[in-house]
Amino acid sequence: MRIVVIGSVAAGTSAAAKARRNDESAEIVIYEKDRDISYSGCGLPYYIGGVVKERAKLTPRDEAFFKQRYNIDVFTGHSVADIDTASKTLSIVNMATGEQFEDRYDKLLIATGAHPIMPPIPGIDKPNVFPLRNVAHADAINEFIQQKQPRHAVIIGGGFIGLEMAENLVHRGIAVDLADMAPQVMTPLDPDMAIYVQQYLERNGVKLYLGHAVEELLGDEEVDTVRLAGGIEIETDMVIMAIGIRPEVELAKRAGIALGPTGAIAVDTRMQTNVPDIYAAGDCAEAFSVINGKPLYRPLGSTANKMGRIAGDQMTGGDLEFRGILGTGIFKTFDMAVAQTGLSEKEAKAQGYDVVVCHNIKYDHADYYPDSAEMVIKAVADKTTHKILGAQIVGPRGVDKRIDVFVTAITFGAKAEDLFHLDLAYAPPFSTAKDPVMYTGMILEGILKRQRPLMTPDQLIQRQMAGEPVTIIDTREPEMYEKGHIEGAVNIPLEDLRSEAGKLDKNIPVVTYCNRGVTGNAAQNLLLQMGFKEVYNLSGGYNNYKVQRKRC
Amino acid sequence: MRIVVIGSVAAGTSAAAKARRNDESAEIVIYEKDRDISYSGCGLPYYIGGVVKERAKLTPRDEAFFKQRYNIDVFTGHSVADIDTASKTLSIVNMATGEQFEDRYDKLLIATGAHPIMPPIPGIDKPNVFPLRNVAHADAINEFIQQKQPRHAVIIGGGFIGLEMAENLVHRGIAVDLADMAPQVMTPLDPDMAIYVQQYLERNGVKLYLGHAVEELLGDEEVDTVRLAGGIEIETDMVIMAIGIRPEVELAKRAGIALGPTGAIAVDTRMQTNVPDIYAAGDCAEAFSVINGKPLYRPLGSTANKMGRIAGDQMTGGDLEFRGILGTGIFKTFDMAVAQTGLSEKEAKAQGYDVVVCHNIKYDHADYYPDSAEMVIKAVADKTTHKILGAQIVGPRGVDKRIDVFVTAITFGAKAEDLFHLDLAYAPPFSTAKDPVMYTGMILEGILKRQRPLMTPDQLIQRQMAGEPVTIIDTREPEMYEKGHIEGAVNIPLEDLRSEAGKLDKNIPVVTYCNRGVTGNAAQNLLLQMGFKEVYNLSGGYNNYKVQRKRC
Repeated sequence: MRIVVIGSVAAGTSAAAKARRNDESAEIVIYEKDRDISYSGCGLPYYIGGVVKERAKLTPRDEAFFKQRYNIDVFTGHSVADIDTASKTLSIVNMATGEQFEDRYDKLLIATGAHPIMPPIPGIDKPNVFPLRNVAHADAINEFIQQKQPRHAVIIGGGFIGLEMAENLVHRGIAVDLADMAPQVMTPLDPDMAIYVQQYLERNGVKLYLGHAVEELLGDEEVDTVRLAGGIEIETDMVIMAIGIRPEVELAKRAGIALGPTGAIAVDTRMQTNVPDIYAAGDCAEAFSVINGKPLYRPLGSTANKMGRIAGDQMTGGDLEFRGILGTGIFKTFDMAVAQTGLSEKEAKAQGYDVVVCHNIKYDHADYYPDSAEMVIKAVADKTTHKILGAQIVGPRGVDKRIDVFVTAITFGAKAEDLFHLDLAYAPPFSTAKDPVMYTGMILEGILKRQRPLMTPDQLIQRQMAGEPVTIIDTREPEMYEKGHIEGAVNIPLEDLRSEAGKLDKNIPVVTYCNRGVTGNAAQNLLLQMGFKEVYNLSGGYNNYKVQRKRC
Repeated sequence: MRIVVIGSVAAGTSAAAKARRNDESAEIVIYEKDRDISYSGCGLPYYIGGVVKERAKLTPRDEAFFKQRYNIDVFTGHSVADIDTASKTLSIVNMATGEQFEDRYDKLLIATGAHPIMPPIPGIDKPNVFPLRNVAHADAINEFIQQKQPRHAVIIGGGFIGLEMAENLVHRGIAVDLADMAPQVMTPLDPDMAIYVQQYLERNGVKLYLGHAVEELLGDEEVDTVRLAGGIEIETDMVIMAIGIRPEVELAKRAGIALGPTGAIAVDTRMQTNVPDIYAAGDCAEAFSVINGKPLYRPLGSTANKMGRIAGDQMTGGDLEFRGILGTGIFKTFDMAVAQTGLSEKEAKAQGYDVVVCHNIKYDHADYYPDSAEMVIKAVADKTTHKILGAQIVGPRGVDKRIDVFVTAITFGAKAEDLFHLDLAYAPPFSTAKDPVMYTGMILEGILKRQRPLMTPDQLIQRQMAGEPVTIIDTREPEMYEKGHIEGAVNIPLEDLRSEAGKLDKNIPVVTYCNRGVTGNAAQNLLLQMGFKEVYNLSGGYNNYKVQRKRC
């Protein structure tokens, strides 16, 4: 059996290695149009930032490695021009010599990856405008920085690459402005979580231009000015294009292979395309949601690895099947970790879910143990089934742990009320006696099962703007209230509430709040038991409100 | 309704607060025989080590706090002498005045906690022998250190408290010897995982005397020498008794409340004892295993909190029920984190499970990103159901995250083959493209479903000692082999194995190995496909074998 793989980054090499592990006798060949193989695309920003010192660390494997270890033939600098699915042949171009030749396959894997989106903006072809997708791109950026010593960069796009590059360019001593046509960074996040990232970027000196499309890259030889919609002009020395990536599907389309609704190659759970014996995996292939089976395109190295392994298993008679993804993502920008999994509030609503949400601000570990820090968790649950649909977390520490607990819980269909019962590991350096994930479950359970509704800052601000009646009670001590409070709030510290609440109108909706929500919840409990009809605790408390008010 | 709670640390205060949240009108009273309430017992070692500077941080709440916030009356220095379950009355002693009085309850919660085991060793009552269970104990240790400036301590007991104290006393400049009558530290760990902790303690200057019971504490006024079984005498300036704790059940027993097989108070899932309207929670109460429902006594703050909350809910008409624990534990000793959840190999076997195990050595995050470090994961799965039964992890970073993913997976009944499919969060600072948890699942799946058995170092050593035939193949490069290898192993680097394997006897069992197991697995695949009958990959590779050989 002859297995041919097109593409040699995460999915292609995973597939080939798995195929070999399963089948010692198969012929396995990989064609790769670039020079570098099996590299870590996710490490590129850190190579540019100087955090990863050696280029070789990102490209630890070469053709010889695959030959020696796996008896796999890798041909770099070879482009597959066409697939003849009827005769199961490929026409291939040796890009160095121009030589064309044919090869045949019994099983073919398309792992052609994705390419950075480079929209037809005037000036985008100038030499100081860089995408960042592969090692050659990183080399080009590094060379430019070394030769030209730029002092300023504009990053176009506030996704993973854009935000990781912001940190890494600042590390190299380059001032960064970041523009995105979206009104927020990181569109997988809800706006009320993205705002935390935006605030943090600004505190680290990154100037943001959100809701501003790029109109033109001005300059003679090189770009010296970026013009954004709204007439904003930014002088700069270099531009990083990080708008996003598109699946590389041209070869597949020409061969009659069907694409899915996301524009990536449609595959079944065995990674098979609509054409017999042709598989697709990695950033060129479409995934689906673990939660509801809907098509999902969230190209990431972790998913590419997974799909590749499954394809390699299937091509050699295995039974491994793809179970979908949650669209989990994480990144670090400066010292802040930002992670999300499953559905955001906006995604869940767009897909027709009736949702409840909460913002939970908690320390990552015991507050008396050094270096504890607050994280903000936003969780979304389904009002009907109580299932957790998604979580978003921002904070300097312990974010990766909590998102992975959510990932695991959601994968197994956890309901809000299940989270409290998890026997998570507690010791002061690692967590709190009740972990932030457990608290999140408790808050959601309060909404779903115990008539303890939350009001989000967005909802409160809307209500205020609409002039709807609401009694807002600041339950903190007077000193805190004096330092800053919600407009129109009355200050009744919790310890006075038992005696003072009688003076309030029980038929007007009440919103209680403290700094983060715990005392607000105690006040809510008290008022509901005293006969108040409609009492909300403010989601995430005043600390969250302060942040959201700037946005709304 | 009058709710009385006996005990005010984790479970008692959680219960009282939850009861108040549910029921504004109940009378809620707590009796506590000590002075400190609602303190973090888990933080005490760090207070002694000076990591936590302020005592007040460990005891953030006092009687006034509970009165103001929750309208709960806390009486410290009050001991409950007896419970009359027929008349629902308590006889109480004010320990300061000696005054005795009665109280009555509608619902009673026993949250009396546990006390340190102080065996009747001669000399144990000397003033420089310290348990560490509560704030008063910590004060006594601190005072002694400040006044006497001890230069050496013996810690008796290698559990959580013993190992956390080892680190913290060393931080205070005190040399530490640690003795345990068990042949290993941390008995919830298997010996082949405890050895990693032991090695690490020794590297940090802690001298271990394992398998040595304490026979006598010698000295005039104070202990100056600890005598262990086997005639070992250790000169010292102070002794920490950290053998373990026992549930405080005397009051309950006297009142006719039934104990469970572990000796702690038996409760149902609503935390009810056998006596109507009497509940128990926290370190005095018995838990059960999430995995198989068997009684389990693993007293920890996290569980006490959980049980307390459930009891508080139930006493006020709620429906929260206890779902059991996995016996999850984590601790830090120096810079090493050690965690375990579910069943160890020895526990699982003792309970009749037919198990498979693996040792998985992996980096916590991308090896090219700074500060990555190896962790060792041992996982245990049920051969029949494929369910993960337990995991043990040792390493300097990312251990808490992986154990919590295992906790969540095991709670939801995850099978070995489920772990690979988790869409865990990947970016170079946080993980590897396939997370160590996923790799663990892949290895176990290989054993369970793909005929890729492992042999543990223990099994190999036993086989060698028994003189049973086995071909051991070191698949590493000759330079590595020369530096150290398993006795009797032949060196056939993987790249030569395809050509060299023909010379070996296919009917003799083969064990392949590399440093950590990945190349060993590739060799195993190859040999099995070449017709070798019985091929094992060495679990955890040579790196694990090296460590285990010292033990076996």
